[in-house]
Amino acid sequence: MKVIIVGGVAGGASCAARLRRLDERIEILMVERGPYVSYANCGLPYHVGGTIAEEANLLVATEQMFRVLFKVDCRINCEVIGINSKAKTVELKNHVSGEVTTESYDKLVLSPGSAPIRPPLPGIDLPGIFSVRTVPDARHIREWLDRDIDRTGSTSFTGVDTISKPKNAVVIGGGFIGLEMVENLKERGLDVTLVEKLNQVMPPLDTEMARLVERYLRKHGVKVELSDGVAGFQKGKMGGLEVLTDSGKVYPADVVIMAIGVKPELSLAKMAGIEIGQLGGMRIDDQMKTSDPDIFALGDACEVKNFVTGQWALIPLAGPANRQGRIVADVIAGRASRFRGTQGTSICKLFDAAIAQTGVSEKQLIALGDKDYEKIYLYPNSHAGYYPGAKTLPVKLIFRKSNGLVLGAQVMGEDGVPKRIDSFAMAIQMGCTIYDLEESELCYAPPYGTGKDPVNFAGMIAADVLRGDMPLVHWDSLGDSFLLDVRSPQEVEVESVPGAVNIPLPQLRSRLAELPRDREIALFCRSAQRSYYATRILLQNGFKAKNISGSMLSRSHRAD
Amino acid sequence: MKVIIVGGVAGGASCAARLRRLDERIEILMVERGPYVSYANCGLPYHVGGTIAEEANLLVATEQMFRVLFKVDCRINCEVIGINSKAKTVELKNHVSGEVTTESYDKLVLSPGSAPIRPPLPGIDLPGIFSVRTVPDARHIREWLDRDIDRTGSTSFTGVDTISKPKNAVVIGGGFIGLEMVENLKERGLDVTLVEKLNQVMPPLDTEMARLVERYLRKHGVKVELSDGVAGFQKGKMGGLEVLTDSGKVYPADVVIMAIGVKPELSLAKMAGIEIGQLGGMRIDDQMKTSDPDIFALGDACEVKNFVTGQWALIPLAGPANRQGRIVADVIAGRASRFRGTQGTSICKLFDAAIAQTGVSEKQLIALGDKDYEKIYLYPNSHAGYYPGAKTLPVKLIFRKSNGLVLGAQVMGEDGVPKRIDSFAMAIQMGCTIYDLEESELCYAPPYGTGKDPVNFAGMIAADVLRGDMPLVHWDSLGDSFLLDVRSPQEVEVESVPGAVNIPLPQLRSRLAELPRDREIALFCRSAQRSYYATRILLQNGFKAKNISGSMLSRSHRAD
Repeated sequence: MKVIIVGGVAGGASCAARLRRLDERIEILMVERGPYVSYANCGLPYHVGGTIAEEANLLVATEQMFRVLFKVDCRINCEVIGINSKAKTVELKNHVSGEVTTESYDKLVLSPGSAPIRPPLPGIDLPGIFSVRTVPDARHIREWLDRDIDRTGSTSFTGVDTISKPKNAVVIGGGFIGLEMVENLKERGLDVTLVEKLNQVMPPLDTEMARLVERYLRKHGVKVELSDGVAGFQKGKMGGLEVLTDSGKVYPADVVIMAIGVKPELSLAKMAGIEIGQLGGMRIDDQMKTSDPDIFALGDACEVKNFVTGQWALIPLAGPANRQGRIVADVIAGRASRFRGTQGTSICKLFDAAIAQTGVSEKQLIALGDKDYEKIYLYPNSHAGYYPGAKTLPVKLIFRKSNGLVLGAQVMGEDGVPKRIDSFAMAIQMGCTIYDLEESELCYAPPYGTGKDPVNFAGMIAADVLRGDMPLVHWDSLGDSFLLDVRSPQEVEVESVPGAVNIPLPQLRSRLAELPRDREIALFCRSAQRSYYATRILLQNGFKAKNISGSMLSRSHRAD
Repeated sequence: MKVIIVGGVAGGASCAARLRRLDERIEILMVERGPYVSYANCGLPYHVGGTIAEEANLLVATEQMFRVLFKVDCRINCEVIGINSKAKTVELKNHVSGEVTTESYDKLVLSPGSAPIRPPLPGIDLPGIFSVRTVPDARHIREWLDRDIDRTGSTSFTGVDTISKPKNAVVIGGGFIGLEMVENLKERGLDVTLVEKLNQVMPPLDTEMARLVERYLRKHGVKVELSDGVAGFQKGKMGGLEVLTDSGKVYPADVVIMAIGVKPELSLAKMAGIEIGQLGGMRIDDQMKTSDPDIFALGDACEVKNFVTGQWALIPLAGPANRQGRIVADVIAGRASRFRGTQGTSICKLFDAAIAQTGVSEKQLIALGDKDYEKIYLYPNSHAGYYPGAKTLPVKLIFRKSNGLVLGAQVMGEDGVPKRIDSFAMAIQMGCTIYDLEESELCYAPPYGTGKDPVNFAGMIAADVLRGDMPLVHWDSLGDSFLLDVRSPQEVEVESVPGAVNIPLPQLRSRLAELPRDREIALFCRSAQRSYYATRILLQNGFKAKNISGSMLSRSHRAD
């Protein structure tokens, strides 16, 4: 049996190593077009920023290691230039020697990954415009940032040096790579402008949660320009470039990072004549088999099933790619392993914060026409408030209205995000309901949590909603409700809501006569905790009361 | 309906607040023997250490708040001195006025908590010996530590001042409170000796995992004295105390912290004549009802079911107490809520590290005579090794041999512990198997994890064991196996294992002839990763090979 694995980075390398562990006798040939196998793709932005100082640190495993430890015939700088799926052969070109050879296979594994989207815009090939995909990409950006720019010819009268290092960066695209590059360029001291075509950063998040990320970016001095696409590039007056946008704006840029997303590399799929899905990724079954039973595919270039929605998705993440690599190896070795699909768990560091999500977003549900859901917002402390370093931890939880099944969660903040998103991720994997979250027993000590962990707290609030104990309403669907603010007069003085009547919670029981019995009353406080107590008082006194989820803390970032 | 809640700290306070939210009309009387309701018990050690600077920060809610927000008749400094469960009355004594009153109830809720164990040892009442249970306890320790000690009469010739602050502390007991006090006394600059009667610190951990904690304590300059109980106390020559131990040792101590555990407060239970379980806690059903159908109990003073083992347990932790308080309120308000039991999730900060566990330990299984389990040790990086700050994260995972069900996990380290223990906790709650862990999709970015998270990695190793791909053996059960060390000669030079033959992994395939075919071969490397590869090679070549779980990293801390 001879297996050829095309692509030796994340999933391909996992597949090769696992396959050898399962079977000493299989002949394994792994070819990688680039100069490195198994490099730390996810570390590239941090190498540009200098957090990861040495390029060598990014090289997780070497060609040599695959040869010696795994008895894998590993060839770098080697590209597949043809696939004959009938004859079961591939044509390989060695980019160093120029030699072209033909190799036969019994099973072929395609792990080509995805390529940064690089639209044919005017000026796109000007020097100083980079993608962030490979080790050489990161090296070129570092070299570019270390370079002196000749500012002669500048018409500026601000006393700028005629020779200076890059000062302005424009990052195009506000997804994972874009945000990581924003942070790392700021770390290097550049002025950074983020240009994003959508009306939000971080596309997997719902828009209102992305507002918190935007605010955080601005707090860190990043210029955020939303709803504006890039139209082209031209040489600037200061020795750098200028980025032109659809709306006619011009941003000076000594360096430009293109991070508008990735698309599956399909050249191999086309050579092999295998089926492509509607999202433009290779179509596979749950054993990672393509439409050709002897060809497997894995990683960014595949469409995978989101097991929460049942829909096909493109999920260009390392975790699923590694799992898929393992499964392909299992199946080739004759085992019954199956890929259970993905749930889109992801996290992104941004300065001192982490932004994370798992499961489905509300906008995915809306796109599917799925209305059987409810959502809550909460803003608990990341750990006991009396222990130093506690931070507000905004959480959005989405769950089935009909049965309480947890569907998705979005969490961000400067403390305790990984702990919570992984609890939610495990919950979703195991088909957990909000009633289970209510009863979860998560670790608690003052530096790490609260007696009721934010995950419990989310479950309790959601359960209060589904049990009918706390009818819920959101800022964007208030209708003509009577607005009742139960905060203290001091808080109202700082920020008030037009049209809202203020009755502080401690006075509520004695001032019920001031409230209308014929209208729905929408209550709020700062975080929806006191207004929850107030809602309970009103409901038990016969009023039609609803609590505004997240209250003032949700108001400031509601979707526009 | 009138409900009396006795004890207003964690669970009692939760119960009162929830009950009011559920029912505006119930008359609620909450009595608390001490001067504070709802104080931050778990924060006390950090107040002693100064991390929590102000005592006021420990007071989470006040008597006033319960009166005004929750319409609860809240009485502090008020003790129950009699219960007539036939007449359904309690006798209350106000410790300020001295007044004694009788109150009737429809439902009585007992939340008395537990008391520090304080054995009647010689000298136990000498000044300078403290427990850590209440706000006044913490205040008294702080005052004691701020005090000058008269050293006159010292025979020391080391130039010690005749008047100086406390310098030596002895902490007796190495559980949660003991370790937290050790850390906080070190933070204040004291020399700390930890005396523990058992042969390990942190009793919920298995002994070999506790060895890592001991090593960490010593690394931080703490003297750790195991397997030695305290025999008594006497005045010392230096103006302080001396702690005498069973083995005849004498430790000077300017301050002594007694932290040898807590026991349920049973005086109320005895007054009420309700059933006490074999562990010495109040016996309750899954609705938190005692043997008297009108009396509920919750918190530290109850025995609860460990739902993993099905056994009764005493779990004096805040999280379960809060959940129980909620459930008692639900049941009194006529709802069908049930307590699902506990799984013993806990975490403890120790200097820069966290020590955590969930589910059952191996020693609990041994005590139950349960042999249907397997255990693995692993030492993955807390996050991507190429991103700064990655630390080794020792993990012990215990699972059912027959079906892969996750039974328990113990995790410690300086980075990423809460993320992993909560994943395991959620997994155990939801009846997850190791095969589910293998496929979990947890958050990954270089600062937070690895493409294969330690939780996945644990699942993969466990699955390799149960699928028969990697027969496992432990250092303490090697028998007369042939010991094969597959590390590099450089590593062997630093630390070798007597009797082991060294064949570095890269040479293994070509040196198979050197290995015995008639004996079991036990393989190891540093972390059991390379020896796993080697085990696979040997198995496929017909050898009887087993991998030593955790390899060299497990060897240094195996149970003695």
